[in-house]
Amino acid sequence: MKTINVALLGFGSVGQSFAQLLLEKREEIEKKYDTTVNVVAITTKTRGNLVDAWGIDLERVLKNIQDTGVFPKMSETMLQRNSLDVAEAVEYDVLVEMTPLEFATGQMATDHVKAALKRGKHVICANKGPLAWHYKELEALAKENNCKFLFETTVMDGTPVFSIVRENLKMCQVTEIRGILNSTTNYILQGLEMGKTCKEIVAEGKRRGFIEANPKNDVEGNEAAAKVAVLANVLMGAELTPDDVEITGIEDITKERIDEAAARGNVIKLICRVYEKDGKIYGKVSPEEISRLNAYATVTGTSLVISITTDLMGTMTIIEESPETEQTGYGIFADLLTVIEDM
Amino acid sequence: MKTINVALLGFGSVGQSFAQLLLEKREEIEKKYDTTVNVVAITTKTRGNLVDAWGIDLERVLKNIQDTGVFPKMSETMLQRNSLDVAEAVEYDVLVEMTPLEFATGQMATDHVKAALKRGKHVICANKGPLAWHYKELEALAKENNCKFLFETTVMDGTPVFSIVRENLKMCQVTEIRGILNSTTNYILQGLEMGKTCKEIVAEGKRRGFIEANPKNDVEGNEAAAKVAVLANVLMGAELTPDDVEITGIEDITKERIDEAAARGNVIKLICRVYEKDGKIYGKVSPEEISRLNAYATVTGTSLVISITTDLMGTMTIIEESPETEQTGYGIFADLLTVIEDM
Repeated sequence: MKTINVALLGFGSVGQSFAQLLLEKREEIEKKYDTTVNVVAITTKTRGNLVDAWGIDLERVLKNIQDTGVFPKMSETMLQRNSLDVAEAVEYDVLVEMTPLEFATGQMATDHVKAALKRGKHVICANKGPLAWHYKELEALAKENNCKFLFETTVMDGTPVFSIVRENLKMCQVTEIRGILNSTTNYILQGLEMGKTCKEIVAEGKRRGFIEANPKNDVEGNEAAAKVAVLANVLMGAELTPDDVEITGIEDITKERIDEAAARGNVIKLICRVYEKDGKIYGKVSPEEISRLNAYATVTGTSLVISITTDLMGTMTIIEESPETEQTGYGIFADLLTVIEDM
Repeated sequence: MKTINVALLGFGSVGQSFAQLLLEKREEIEKKYDTTVNVVAITTKTRGNLVDAWGIDLERVLKNIQDTGVFPKMSETMLQRNSLDVAEAVEYDVLVEMTPLEFATGQMATDHVKAALKRGKHVICANKGPLAWHYKELEALAKENNCKFLFETTVMDGTPVFSIVRENLKMCQVTEIRGILNSTTNYILQGLEMGKTCKEIVAEGKRRGFIEANPKNDVEGNEAAAKVAVLANVLMGAELTPDDVEITGIEDITKERIDEAAARGNVIKLICRVYEKDGKIYGKVSPEEISRLNAYATVTGTSLVISITTDLMGTMTIIEESPETEQTGYGIFADLLTVIEDM
C-alpha cells in the first residue's frame, strides 16, 4: 500500500467537507488505488495548526471543531509555524491551498503554491488568487518541476470545468466562455426582482450561509472578475489579471431597472464573458439583459452556469444546481484522486 | 511514429464528419501522440466497401462521395466483403461501429462489436443498439480481452456524458438521470406549440436534415428509450433493454393539450428518466409538463439536455446547444484519442 501525504492550508467549511470525504472514502481509496491518504498538516488563521508526520486523526479533529471551534489539544504536534513555513518545510506530497482569497494580490496563497511547486510537490489550489494573478508563472513552475497543479474548485465549486476541457474536449480550442459565476449577485438580483431590499436579501443570504460577512467584492463584480481571469488564463492562454477585466457590478441595479427589463421579457443577470477580438483575449463582467426564454434566466438561487464554446464542439452549457459546501469539498477530493491516479 | 489502424463500419454523414476531422487533425495527432491514424477499411450498405491495408486516401474518398455519392473505383481494393467479414477478418486496431440502428434487436451492430472484442480489438460504438440490448455481455468481453469499449456519441452526440462520469465524477454514484434526449420530438412539440401541424413540422425538419425519413421510432419514444437503456446500463449498472423501459410517445399530444399546459405556465417535453426505487433501476420515457421557469423549458430546436445526479456532487445539468453532425463526428474522434492515449 502506497501512502500519500497531504498538507492542508486553511480549514474552513470547504476544508472540513474535504476532510469528511477523506474519512468516508478511506477504504474505497485504499481498495481502488492501493493508497492511503495521510493528512500530515493543517494550518488555520484562528483555530491553530496541526502537524503530525504520522497522520492527523481527522475524525477527532472534525469532532473537536464541531464541539469547540478549535483544534484539539495535541501539544506535542501543535506548532507555532505559519502556513508558509508548512508549505516550505513540512514533508508532504500534495499541498492543498484553501486559505481565504486576498483580492488585491492573490497572496499569501501564491507564495504557498510557489513554495510547494519549487520543492517538486503537487498542488491543489482552491484559491482563485494565484491563478488570477500568476497563472502563467505557476503553470511553468509546475511543468518544470514535473508536478500536478490542479484547481477545479476555483470556478463553479466542484463541478468539472477545467477537467472537462482537459480530459473530455481533447484537441478542442476554446473560443468563448460565458457564465453566471457568482451566486451572491445572482441571489441578490433575484431578491430585488421579488421586491425585497438589498439589505433584507443579504441578511437572508448570510443567515443561510452562502453570503459572506462582507459581500462588497461580490456586489462590485471583483469576485466574478477573478474567475474570469482564471478562465481566460487557463482555458484560452491569456495573461489577464483581474485588473484587466472590464467590471461593472450590480450596485446600480434597482427594482425599477429590473421591471423595465421584465417588460421586455428579460431578466438582469451578472454575466461573465471571456472572448477573443483581433487576436486578443478580453474579460468582462457586467449586468446584462437576458431573455426569459434563455436557460440563463432559469439559473436562480445558488445555482451557477457556464457555457464553453470550442471550435470542434460548439457550445456546451453546464448548470450546477444548488451547490452546497460539500460540492466544493468534492472538487478538491476529485483533484486529489487525479494526483493519486498518476502516481 | 506508431500507426493505429482503424476500420469504419458505416459511412454516412457522421462517418464523413469523423473522416474529415481525421484529415484536418492528422498533423496535430502525429505531433501530439507520435501516432498516425490509418483507415484500413470502410464498409457501407449502398456505396460499396473499401479495404486497403496501406491506408485509404480519405481526401479522395470524401471528394468522390461529395461528387458522385459512391466510393471511387479502386478496383484492387474494392472487395465484396460485408461489414461482419471486415470486423472478423481485416487487420485493424480499432473498429468504429457506425451502421444504422436496428431498433428491435441491436443487430448487426452487436455481432460486429462482439467479433472485434473477441479478437482483442478496441471498439468505438456510435450505435446505441449493442449497448441498449447487450451492454453487460459486451462490457465483460471487453474486460476479458483487455480492450477499450467506448461509445460517447450514443447519447447527446459528441457531448461528453459517459466520459464525464468516468473521468470527472470519480467515485460518485449516479443516483438519477433525467433528460431531453431526442431532438425530433422536441422539435415537433415546439412546432405544435407554434400552431403548425405535425406534417408541416416533419417536412421542415427533413428539409433541414435532422429528421429522419421515417421518424416513427422518434415519435413513439423508441429512440429515446434506447438511450434510456444505454444510460441505465452504463451509468447505473442496470440490465435493462428498451423493452423494459416504460414508454409513452408524443403521438397523442395535441395543440389543445399544449395550450392547457401553457395556461398553467408549463410546456410539454418528452422527458427521459432513469431512477432507482426499492433497489431496482427503472427507465421511463414520457411527455411531462415542465415549468417555464425550468431550464428544460428553454431547450428548443435541436438542442438537448441531460441532468446527472450523483451522491457526492448533486445534480449537474448539461445542455448541448444546436448540435450538428460535426459534433457526433467529434465524439468518435474524442473516443479514438482516448484509445490512442492509452496505447
